[in-house]
Amino acid sequence: MTAEELMTANALNSWKLVVDRFSQGIAPLSDEQLQKQVAPGRNRLLYLVGHLTAVHDRLFPLLGFGARLHPELDDVYITNPDRTHPDPLSAADLKQAWTEVNTKLTAALEKLTPAEWLHKHTAVSEEDFAKDPARNRLAVVLSRTNHAAFHSGQAVLVKA
Amino acid sequence: MTAEELMTANALNSWKLVVDRFSQGIAPLSDEQLQKQVAPGRNRLLYLVGHLTAVHDRLFPLLGFGARLHPELDDVYITNPDRTHPDPLSAADLKQAWTEVNTKLTAALEKLTPAEWLHKHTAVSEEDFAKDPARNRLAVVLSRTNHAAFHSGQAVLVKA
Repeated sequence: MTAEELMTANALNSWKLVVDRFSQGIAPLSDEQLQKQVAPGRNRLLYLVGHLTAVHDRLFPLLGFGARLHPELDDVYITNPDRTHPDPLSAADLKQAWTEVNTKLTAALEKLTPAEWLHKHTAVSEEDFAKDPARNRLAVVLSRTNHAAFHSGQAVLVKA
Repeated sequence: MTAEELMTANALNSWKLVVDRFSQGIAPLSDEQLQKQVAPGRNRLLYLVGHLTAVHDRLFPLLGFGARLHPELDDVYITNPDRTHPDPLSAADLKQAWTEVNTKLTAALEKLTPAEWLHKHTAVSEEDFAKDPARNRLAVVLSRTNHAAFHSGQAVLVKA
């Protein structure tokens, strides 16, 4: 493995570890447990599942991987706060969407060459990217990994 | 910048972003606010500050950067759960330790060349590292960045 291949393997391992731990954390939970709030007055665990699914689903166009799978989740789980809109999917269907999005996304990330990891993401202009080549796919994946870890820390506060 | 330099710059940016956000989050908090639990029966915010300081302080020997600054924190903030031992430092001194550890650590990370990022960390044997070269400094820093993001998600639950 070249140095570049090792570095992207490290980043991909880190992404997978965080996503897999969150998956394992929610897998055994009942619908009732998913309705619990992570702290009094804070987001329900189900909202976090929807939020992370929607945010990761947005990575398909952002990373140039094609169309999203679940654009219908944004309104409820990104644009609006928890408990202001009815959940559009059952807990089981939302868990399935989470798995589906991450499986497809991780498969696409696994196919990237080191040079492709350093391509610009689609939300930055050619001009801005020329000024700051750190605005690449790798930066986006590291950022979303941290974001998923951030909400994982909240999710574990729900007592089984 | 070479591809390798860009990748390590991305990893360092990610580390700094998470550490800086946590620092900004705790900076304005009073001693009383730091005594609050992130959720009923869970860790106090002060415990999280101590925990992250101790875990980051352990990176000095783990990454081959020399001696630790605050080994006295481990017993209270890593080995034992919250509220079983008296806090060894005042909230102000603990905040200062957090800043001191991260400033020194980040400065050491900034000096690493891409090849040095891929050196083995000190907790893996030469033999195991030969089998899995992903057990390098970069993997450790990505992992600790996720860990800090995980607890940051809990820390923001404390209402100011």
